[in-house]
Amino acid sequence: MERPSVNIDRIEAARERIRGLARVTPVLTSPFLDEIAGRRVFVKAEPLQVTGSFKFRGALSALSVLAPGEGVLAYSSGNHAQGVAMAARLQGREAVIVMPADAPALKIANTRALGAEVVLYDRANGESREEIGDALAAERGLHLVRPFDDPEVIAGQGTVGLELAEQIPADVGGDVLVCCGGGGLTSGIALALEARRPDLRVRPVEPEGFDDTARSLRSGHRETNPRVSGSICDAILTPAPGELTFPILHRLAGPGLVVSDEEALRAMALAAIRLKLVTEPGGAVSLAAALFRRDEIRGDAVTVVVSGGNADPETLAHALTL
Amino acid sequence: MERPSVNIDRIEAARERIRGLARVTPVLTSPFLDEIAGRRVFVKAEPLQVTGSFKFRGALSALSVLAPGEGVLAYSSGNHAQGVAMAARLQGREAVIVMPADAPALKIANTRALGAEVVLYDRANGESREEIGDALAAERGLHLVRPFDDPEVIAGQGTVGLELAEQIPADVGGDVLVCCGGGGLTSGIALALEARRPDLRVRPVEPEGFDDTARSLRSGHRETNPRVSGSICDAILTPAPGELTFPILHRLAGPGLVVSDEEALRAMALAAIRLKLVTEPGGAVSLAAALFRRDEIRGDAVTVVVSGGNADPETLAHALTL
Repeated sequence: MERPSVNIDRIEAARERIRGLARVTPVLTSPFLDEIAGRRVFVKAEPLQVTGSFKFRGALSALSVLAPGEGVLAYSSGNHAQGVAMAARLQGREAVIVMPADAPALKIANTRALGAEVVLYDRANGESREEIGDALAAERGLHLVRPFDDPEVIAGQGTVGLELAEQIPADVGGDVLVCCGGGGLTSGIALALEARRPDLRVRPVEPEGFDDTARSLRSGHRETNPRVSGSICDAILTPAPGELTFPILHRLAGPGLVVSDEEALRAMALAAIRLKLVTEPGGAVSLAAALFRRDEIRGDAVTVVVSGGNADPETLAHALTL
Repeated sequence: MERPSVNIDRIEAARERIRGLARVTPVLTSPFLDEIAGRRVFVKAEPLQVTGSFKFRGALSALSVLAPGEGVLAYSSGNHAQGVAMAARLQGREAVIVMPADAPALKIANTRALGAEVVLYDRANGESREEIGDALAAERGLHLVRPFDDPEVIAGQGTVGLELAEQIPADVGGDVLVCCGGGGLTSGIALALEARRPDLRVRPVEPEGFDDTARSLRSGHRETNPRVSGSICDAILTPAPGELTFPILHRLAGPGLVVSDEEALRAMALAAIRLKLVTEPGGAVSLAAALFRRDEIRGDAVTVVVSGGNADPETLAHALTL
């Protein structure tokens, strides 16, 4: 079966479907961050999106093309879970979410509070969320909403790129740093900017030890990570780039950037103090790269997509007192 | 000399002067906050304003009517200081700021980093910032920008009300809770809503022990606070309602609400976790009232103006671990 492709028309159609329910998030700036980064920094604040991350865009985009009343299933470390749960709630659909037992407690609790049924699995011991998810979806007749390898999910995340194309001043070109797990957000933004702002180039940012996308972009093939847990950046720990997302990234994005967990925590603290924005570690790696990898970035301005803010309170408090 | 009055035309004129430099801040919501409050909660997020509080609006409004090159002086516990410093920097003006020595370290450091000269005074021992400010302004030929008793400052703060009139859904009436110190923000919003959304009523919120406005609204006269320090809500500790602001509040706003310091801290934690928004104690008293004084509020929805986010990192970390 031929895979449906994602293009700018599909992203524009997704924007129409999610309009009025997903927020157009603001772009924030601070002279204090500009000074650390050595250039102007424009921060797209997706923690302010409904459910606290960009994932609501893709979830709502994907659910909006299903038949009325059709139930959904998703596997997720937490942000896709909340996005799907909220989108399902708005549309009156049943939602079952398969989550790793070591996901942040807040994400599990939020997903349940939004009305979804949560099924936990053990990520560290090698249980496969794909197998659990596929089996449950078949057994209960639910539509599986993949976290990134779904054209309507990628199109929904691409609406971040449409907004950036309008929000970033016309005289600002250069790098757009995007937190990257499976590549749904990164590839969606890359497609939108290819059509609307070809002067901006997307560069994925990953945590140390989980740089599958950076290595894949170098080798030209989908590389895997040796581990699937062990970083505080839980939101973006994926085994490998997606089947649909990687060809897009290979054509349009890179090179990748890599930051440490400690740099992600320091970026969280600076986002809180300088932008008044709460971020989670995986959502702040892009800002960490802008602030602490300045020699690897081109141009006199940089755009940063901060992707989520669902940090446990203890993690945020820890970052603030480093 | 007759005092110039503030009206809707003056607020609209201020909006034109600050357009493109001040941000139109978003209104945020969370189903989790709605549940605690027992009604829908709409949060106007002024921590996302330039310099981290609404004060930039009034400062830029006031400085924009001065002669080019005229220097300015302000006294402030920190947020007005940063607003004036940033507005002066954007317009190439000299800025001198008189600040209490016990203001949060971050606010003093930020004000200096924005290029202003900072003069410290001892608030607890009764030194008068007005006297210090008046003397310095006269001596150095600087224009004094009062923190609230200035028509162009009130007009600038009133732009929050113009935005709310457009952002709050037309079917949502009821109370608008506003953090209140001297009353510049509260009176400006009240004037804007009187003209644009008379279905919304402004109610000032203050910390326990510093409820001069609530008491003044009850008595019909400007009452004073017994103390001028001793709450963590440093941003809104003023001796009494303003000379210009109180008649506006008396005509259009109230009754006042009062919350404890601990409730302000709990509201800070909930704003961070549920809205991904960093607030400071004095900026969160309005949210605290919405969440913890539900029986004193009318209607099935409430609008909350969260006024600032310049908390010291330690204070925010403390709130998150309560």
